[in-house]
Amino acid sequence: MRYGGIEAGGTKWVCAVADGAGLPLETETFPTTGPEETISLATRFFTANGPVDAMGVGAFGPLDIRPTSPTWGTITTTPKPGWANLDLVSALRSGIEVPLALDTDVNAAALGEWRWGAAAGLDTFFYITVGTGIGGGAVMNGQLLHGLLHPEFGHMRIPHDRVRDPFAGICPYHGDCLEGLASGEAEYLAHALVNMICIGSPQRIIIGGGVAKQPTLLPMARQRLSDLLAGYLRVPELTQPDELERYIVTPSLGDRAGVVGAIELARDAVPGNTGSAAGAAGPG
Amino acid sequence: MRYGGIEAGGTKWVCAVADGAGLPLETETFPTTGPEETISLATRFFTANGPVDAMGVGAFGPLDIRPTSPTWGTITTTPKPGWANLDLVSALRSGIEVPLALDTDVNAAALGEWRWGAAAGLDTFFYITVGTGIGGGAVMNGQLLHGLLHPEFGHMRIPHDRVRDPFAGICPYHGDCLEGLASGEAEYLAHALVNMICIGSPQRIIIGGGVAKQPTLLPMARQRLSDLLAGYLRVPELTQPDELERYIVTPSLGDRAGVVGAIELARDAVPGNTGSAAGAAGPG
Repeated sequence: MRYGGIEAGGTKWVCAVADGAGLPLETETFPTTGPEETISLATRFFTANGPVDAMGVGAFGPLDIRPTSPTWGTITTTPKPGWANLDLVSALRSGIEVPLALDTDVNAAALGEWRWGAAAGLDTFFYITVGTGIGGGAVMNGQLLHGLLHPEFGHMRIPHDRVRDPFAGICPYHGDCLEGLASGEAEYLAHALVNMICIGSPQRIIIGGGVAKQPTLLPMARQRLSDLLAGYLRVPELTQPDELERYIVTPSLGDRAGVVGAIELARDAVPGNTGSAAGAAGPG
Repeated sequence: MRYGGIEAGGTKWVCAVADGAGLPLETETFPTTGPEETISLATRFFTANGPVDAMGVGAFGPLDIRPTSPTWGTITTTPKPGWANLDLVSALRSGIEVPLALDTDVNAAALGEWRWGAAAGLDTFFYITVGTGIGGGAVMNGQLLHGLLHPEFGHMRIPHDRVRDPFAGICPYHGDCLEGLASGEAEYLAHALVNMICIGSPQRIIIGGGVAKQPTLLPMARQRLSDLLAGYLRVPELTQPDELERYIVTPSLGDRAGVVGAIELARDAVPGNTGSAAGAAGPG
């Protein structure tokens, strides 16, 4: 078996072919430009490095991944020029004729971290990426979370003190939602973490994206989160500093979480496969 | 089989015994006063109406329901006088010697609505109660959500325009968290709904509690929710008014959701039972 994976992110795409154990053999990364150019670079990669038995795609969104939807596989309301209402799956399928599984880029990253990284052994956790945009993926009760559509952490609403910070926010839909305000500020990120904890009760939160690489931001966000929770949720993960360090973490797989997860989506798309056991030899 | 159920809420307790189909045979409701008096009224009810084969308890929290915790069954940081750090399960067990299952009152209500009410057939939804306090329960991917502990919707953080509303909030832990601000205002409730949708992607949201009985509040909250989402999440449930009315709903079981769910917790606590199929004859 050989699997193909694409992390089809809003900033960059990462393509990979992997062996049957999920270990990437060849990868290629290129910036996300217009859809035609970007997709043709991907199909060219798989033509050169194929064939594969199944493809997994983790794509930026919002994405129609409702299995019964007539527009399944379409990127919907993105403000990204050229990409709104694009039928991504059909575009990819025209070059790649194998079973194709699709999820959000952040659900794919969550899956990668679950099988091979910082979330091994958990059944309920969140993956949030904080960079140019903010996205979120989730495993809840042992399955990737789709529910109505898929999580959209970036568009939650958080307190915004307009006296201290009069910035109106840049989200074209919502102004000062989390994504409109935040990218990289510990205060707003901490409020988002409070809401994720109060709503989803995750066993761990993994923070990826460019922001996770700033060495001061995570410690500041942890401290501010602890202040905001004010001891109300009395579990060691939230009240003891050393446990909190293991609760709010960066991805073990770093920037590879998304493409590793896309490969796992491909693995799961092959009939009879039931997902690899975490901890076996693999891409970690 | 006979099952016992207690909705052990912060305002009132509802006790019930039910037949093997989950249909309540006897119920009794009394206000939540001090723990000694309240618990003795419950044990007296079950002595008079017993015996039962299993008990289910849906209790106000925060509640230690971590299965491996040495303080499992304890109400923890509640500001309610007399109830903080109370070992509820041991207190109840001293009078009732049968298998006992414990969850939050709102998870119990979610379970009741799932088996017999407004959430039948879904696998991912939220139940929020808005009254004196605000609580939330959830089914995610076909199971009640516990995760790290349990959801605590009331303590999420939402935008608060202190120019328009200088109220500092009344939560003793967090000041102007949702519960500190809201109880019954459509603007704050709508922001909470946005966050619940962005984080948990529920297929439906059930709103119970006293607020759900105000005939103007839900339509206002739906409208404001729709304004806040601004068409970003393009699914009919969120963009079409008639679908939105079926998406944000009141509990089919009304005030009985909690105790019906507590009975279902009892049913599930009996080895060999796997939960009743929704739609059969039952308490609906």
